[in-house]
Amino acid sequence: MSIKYKTIFHIDENSKWKLLLTNVSNLLVAMENENFDVEVLANAEAVKYYDATQDLGADINTMKLLNEKGVKFVACNNALMANNIKKNNIIEFVNIVPAGVLELVLKQSEGFAYIKP
Amino acid sequence: MSIKYKTIFHIDENSKWKLLLTNVSNLLVAMENENFDVEVLANAEAVKYYDATQDLGADINTMKLLNEKGVKFVACNNALMANNIKKNNIIEFVNIVPAGVLELVLKQSEGFAYIKP
Amino acid sequence: MSIKYKTIFHIDENSKWKLLLTNVSNLLVAMENENFDVEVLANAEAVKYYDATQDLGADINTMKLLNEKGVKFVACNNALMANNIKKNNIIEFVNIVPAGVLELVLKQSEGFAYIKP
Repeated sequence: MSIKYKTIFHIDENSKWKLLLTNVSNLLVAMENENFDVEVLANAEAVKYYDATQDLGADINTMKLLNEKGVKFVACNNALMANNIKKNNIIEFVNIVPAGVLELVLKQSEGFAYIKP
Repeated sequence: MSIKYKTIFHIDENSKWKLLLTNVSNLLVAMENENFDVEVLANAEAVKYYDATQDLGADINTMKLLNEKGVKFVACNNALMANNIKKNNIIEFVNIVPAGVLELVLKQSEGFAYIKP
Repeated sequence: MSIKYKTIFHIDENSKWKLLLTNVSNLLVAMENENFDVEVLANAEAVKYYDATQDLGADINTMKLLNEKGVKFVACNNALMANNIKKNNIIEFVNIVPAGVLELVLKQSEGFAYIKP
């Protein structure tokens, strides 16, 4: 049985998305053939990137590909409301949690490593 | 017996205080009626926000309220000295530790989750 | 037997090096006479600081001193390649790992505290 790599990436600045996606992509390559659990938790202004009504260019394809490989993308509902982003408008594979900070605490208590790009 | 949520927030940029206070407030709402241990550790220039001789506007009331609910605010003494902030001038409910980085290490070794807004 | 303080510092912005070196120096002073394992993991643009062909001023001496005291400096190979930094040109005591993010995950799974200055 292979080790299960559990990691939660935290992003709260919209300008950090390209760096974050590179980080996650590199991690998946490095963990090839390993059992993993990788989540991207966006709160504060970073949830704006989940708004599907904008043109994200190549990044949306990267996100889709990562999601197909098992990466979970999660949004903080407090942040969605604070940024006036309607749930109907967010990227379809993004999950919503009531509070992003609580998600960060819970995952770390379950043994997830924390990485803030 | 409820789970004890242990979390240390790390702040080292003065410009991140409003985001941090929103994060901590959201966490407390999400953990309502749960047993928790939440600490805010400020080092580097972020300790400037602990200087009670300035006008912090509504943020000082938010900090007081969070502290009354159990949130601990802690300052790194190395940073206080580096920023010429006198201990007599800091907010009364702020505690001081000799080295903020050691506090971050010790708390994580005690099972605290780490969050850097 | 003294406690072993295990800590990994993460840096991905070149502008944060002075702050990081101060953090690491303060941690070593605070842990004096204790058994410790401290690693600095640089990825993204932060690996540029490992390029020995530039003039780092006093910082290179700080890094050397910290390394002599046991601090490990590590570079992400993905980042070295992305920034066109040749392995022959990096500071001699810097180690290279294939993927910086995997290093962050592995160390935290071994009980290392994570600090992002």
